[in-house]
Amino acid sequence: MIDTVAQSLRQLRESAPLVQLITNYVSMNIAANALIAVGASPAMVQAPEEASEFLRDCAQALAVNIGTLSDISAQTMAETAKTANAADKPWVLDPVAVGATQFRRDTGAKLLSLRPTIIRGNASEIRALANRGGSSRGVDAGDMVSEAESDARNLAHSSGAVVAITGPMDFITDGDRAMRLFGGHGLMPKVTALGCALSGVTAAFATTAAPYEATLAALAAYAAAGSLAGEHAAGPGSFAVAFIDALHMLTPDMVHERTRIEII
Amino acid sequence: MIDTVAQSLRQLRESAPLVQLITNYVSMNIAANALIAVGASPAMVQAPEEASEFLRDCAQALAVNIGTLSDISAQTMAETAKTANAADKPWVLDPVAVGATQFRRDTGAKLLSLRPTIIRGNASEIRALANRGGSSRGVDAGDMVSEAESDARNLAHSSGAVVAITGPMDFITDGDRAMRLFGGHGLMPKVTALGCALSGVTAAFATTAAPYEATLAALAAYAAAGSLAGEHAAGPGSFAVAFIDALHMLTPDMVHERTRIEII
Amino acid sequence: MIDTVAQSLRQLRESAPLVQLITNYVSMNIAANALIAVGASPAMVQAPEEASEFLRDCAQALAVNIGTLSDISAQTMAETAKTANAADKPWVLDPVAVGATQFRRDTGAKLLSLRPTIIRGNASEIRALANRGGSSRGVDAGDMVSEAESDARNLAHSSGAVVAITGPMDFITDGDRAMRLFGGHGLMPKVTALGCALSGVTAAFATTAAPYEATLAALAAYAAAGSLAGEHAAGPGSFAVAFIDALHMLTPDMVHERTRIEII
Repeated sequence: MIDTVAQSLRQLRESAPLVQLITNYVSMNIAANALIAVGASPAMVQAPEEASEFLRDCAQALAVNIGTLSDISAQTMAETAKTANAADKPWVLDPVAVGATQFRRDTGAKLLSLRPTIIRGNASEIRALANRGGSSRGVDAGDMVSEAESDARNLAHSSGAVVAITGPMDFITDGDRAMRLFGGHGLMPKVTALGCALSGVTAAFATTAAPYEATLAALAAYAAAGSLAGEHAAGPGSFAVAFIDALHMLTPDMVHERTRIEII
Repeated sequence: MIDTVAQSLRQLRESAPLVQLITNYVSMNIAANALIAVGASPAMVQAPEEASEFLRDCAQALAVNIGTLSDISAQTMAETAKTANAADKPWVLDPVAVGATQFRRDTGAKLLSLRPTIIRGNASEIRALANRGGSSRGVDAGDMVSEAESDARNLAHSSGAVVAITGPMDFITDGDRAMRLFGGHGLMPKVTALGCALSGVTAAFATTAAPYEATLAALAAYAAAGSLAGEHAAGPGSFAVAFIDALHMLTPDMVHERTRIEII
Repeated sequence: MIDTVAQSLRQLRESAPLVQLITNYVSMNIAANALIAVGASPAMVQAPEEASEFLRDCAQALAVNIGTLSDISAQTMAETAKTANAADKPWVLDPVAVGATQFRRDTGAKLLSLRPTIIRGNASEIRALANRGGSSRGVDAGDMVSEAESDARNLAHSSGAVVAITGPMDFITDGDRAMRLFGGHGLMPKVTALGCALSGVTAAFATTAAPYEATLAALAAYAAAGSLAGEHAAGPGSFAVAFIDALHMLTPDMVHERTRIEII
């Protein structure tokens, strides 16, 4: 498994995949910086006039995120996701606060029906998406990762996606296989939009390996960079800065040393 | 007064209020990070399809900011402000550059008529809002805080809101009572959107105390964090980073030591 | 030439020009911070209801950037550019990824026809704009600056604009005169939206000198700040922070010491 992660990271840096993001306004800057730091190239192309064309002709992967949803962006996300499927390019769904309002539940269900390659969210979001409702208090995880594991498995089975829950511990499943990932740092949830940025990074990794392995590689790289950044941080402000530096200097060995995988 | 501030800060961190922001694109990231750092939870839910529902069902307070106004956001701000009133939840108005264009003057007047709990702006903005016009050169304060004090009192009287002017010195009034707050750091106006973020932070504090005391608590916490950050900054870039760290590590004692209140 | 740069920088800091930006969401925060750090004042006023009025009555210069284009923003950019021409205020076009989609090619051609004062892009963008098409892989320069020099000259001739290509080396031309600028740091392309922010900074400098000299001053200040920031950076995260600090502390002497001009 660890070899797969190392290989994915190396391949990402050689190929520098162009990843299209249709994402929220809070995350745009840090998501772009995280993608560049890890070795990919971001493009926030999101107008209905061009989003599908750009994905078809230019980008290698797509990430959609419903954080600051609008009616237009919801439609554009759906259209571009269809284009991704038609072009056989991976796409990642980040269902921010999907249980919080009817608009989010509807948009989440619509995007889920378009067969995302990978779904990444916190425990509350994965539970809400799996159960077509539930509650989600803003963008923070109210639920524990461990409590959401069976929901994640069910969601993976019903949707065909690899499902990842991120939190103090990460959980990844394709419905059959599953594993837990340990690493990261306690300041990560104190920096806004790091999860959103991770969805973009996961889309970049999805160009380097099969979805299950790619998701592990993305989450492991992120967790290792978080662990490294934590050594240089006095609080969430300096952590965010150190985290981008860490993603940039990350080596496969650092990922190996700073994360632990538990196959279930 | 200082005891109230300390109590508000403690209560904010215990309750971690969910604050909804309908704010400008420049400020979104730093506002979210400032809210998390101080102990609250931000949610940038702003689509007309869901903003009122989210405020009613999920959020404890609202902040609206007209920095990068659009026709849709102006309407959504007004609708959500009405929902806040109906649900008896505090809401903060940040009238960015309200005197600069007819669109801003109209939107400012409309939002003012919806009885904000607290209004926070720079001296130029408060003067423009109080006088239904005037001029406002972008987002920077051309006017002195002291020159705007009587406008702030008038605005508080006519609107029923607590009015805060922030700048080199802050001024807070409910129309009858008034005080000046000293603290902060000279680099604060050199970091974009720190004022916008403060409006969000003020909404968070508004869940912990009555509006006048809550505004003081928010501004005092901010000023103390600015003073602390100034000790670790080589310029506005490192100041912004240190400021988020400072908000995160802030204690009631630090607020006490680094700010001074003058009751008028 | 270097004297012109020094004079422009001093004048910018004395006059603190108000620069209106209609720019992409990724760049908004860092562009605003870069403008403040260099000594200008940013305003992201972009609604069709007010953008032209604000430029006419308040701002001294305009920068438009098609990074996260929409149909409304494309129209507003064109209307505001016309207002800039009518009011004889300089405006800068930043044609992000202009070759990537039909929507971008059309918008780029439309804005080009409105006679920008200055055009700033990477080599791929300048080539695409000069050749009304071509390809542009996202926002990164696939082409070399040197390969695009003749395209830049042609574009300057046909449009009447000063054209600047930025990259490992910068190239500036008004069609007849041309020069290369050396400086900067290898981490600059690893920070998202630094180029977009430079377009705003160039608009600020355009209020201090004729377009050719102003463009040189902006690019030289930026390159010098990049060189300075590079001495304090462990990666792209800390580089971005140090870069804002460096723009803030920049002196004419530093620009002189850290850049080199080659007149062609």
